[in-house]
Amino acid sequence: MKTVDFYFDYSSTNSYFAAFLLPDICRKHDAIVNWLPIHLASMFRGTGFDVMAMTPRKARYLWRDHQRYAEFTGLPFRKPSRFPIKTSAALRATLMIPGLIGEDPDNYTASKMSDFAQAVMRAYWERDVDISDLAMLGALARSLGLNADTLIAAAGSEEARARLASVTEHAIARGVFGAPMFVVDGEMFWGKDRLEFVERCLVTK
Amino acid sequence: MKTVDFYFDYSSTNSYFAAFLLPDICRKHDAIVNWLPIHLASMFRGTGFDVMAMTPRKARYLWRDHQRYAEFTGLPFRKPSRFPIKTSAALRATLMIPGLIGEDPDNYTASKMSDFAQAVMRAYWERDVDISDLAMLGALARSLGLNADTLIAAAGSEEARARLASVTEHAIARGVFGAPMFVVDGEMFWGKDRLEFVERCLVTK
Repeated sequence: MKTVDFYFDYSSTNSYFAAFLLPDICRKHDAIVNWLPIHLASMFRGTGFDVMAMTPRKARYLWRDHQRYAEFTGLPFRKPSRFPIKTSAALRATLMIPGLIGEDPDNYTASKMSDFAQAVMRAYWERDVDISDLAMLGALARSLGLNADTLIAAAGSEEARARLASVTEHAIARGVFGAPMFVVDGEMFWGKDRLEFVERCLVTK
Repeated sequence: MKTVDFYFDYSSTNSYFAAFLLPDICRKHDAIVNWLPIHLASMFRGTGFDVMAMTPRKARYLWRDHQRYAEFTGLPFRKPSRFPIKTSAALRATLMIPGLIGEDPDNYTASKMSDFAQAVMRAYWERDVDISDLAMLGALARSLGLNADTLIAAAGSEEARARLASVTEHAIARGVFGAPMFVVDGEMFWGKDRLEFVERCLVTK
């Protein structure tokens, strides 16, 4: 079975779309998604790159483009009122899930992990939930049958911080510079617009 | 017959791909391409945006991605040795072609204009020709049956400068912020990755 490494951050609109489109593609081709939450804000720090720096006409276009993409895919995307948003707590919580449910803590392909990641994406990009709020993250965890208090405590732990730093640093070392990014068969792809190329890798190689 | 406004600059790799893919799509759906050369360097001036500012890992990725896209489309793209390159003379020459061949000078859908635009794209992005060199532009014009000296003189005229400034300023006023961009049925699309959306506009509306 092939694995697709999926680098994402909850703050990335295109990662939201990919979080639903990629698992569908992988399911079709018997492949597995390896969920790799990265902290874009710390990745961009010191590079001089500012994801929010753009002309008003470009910003206007991008929201319109996301709306069209939502219509195209059928995903009920809605522009959130808080944007950008702090995502580090949600990313750390995500990374702690495998260990909390008694699985290998270093295995990021667990289904509960993908369930939680998709739940956070839906909360922020469909229902305008404040995902920087620990209580909100707890409620999402509870809705998936996880212990909210345990998850919130784990998200604040040193281990969670170390995991997020480690995944982000490993991504940078590998060449990742944004999100969503996908690695399959040693090939790296950037953006939801390259999912077709990811799919071709799963079919042909 | 529908018209697709195609904003491009010769310095844009993605415009190169679009310059061949868009006419194919339009032909299939009985639509016309309106070739609108814009000067990206002057469009970006004063916005604080620097198209070349990026981490080495992002730059490396982008060339690899272009190479893959070339394989995907069959277009013989080759990374040019001069990059970026000054394109204003080539853009001005392009805009003067309709008038020089005795057609309406304000009609940018003339076939000689698209022939010349595609010839310049191929020269730069396939054969590493220095398209900032007037002699090279003259040779390309000659190969299309145009008078090279007349075209070079026209490219340097005040009229050519005014045309390039006018198309670029009109584009900005309309919301264009990069290239390639397409406008069809009042909808604006950015990037070769939205050609599928352009095609859907030609089919459904």
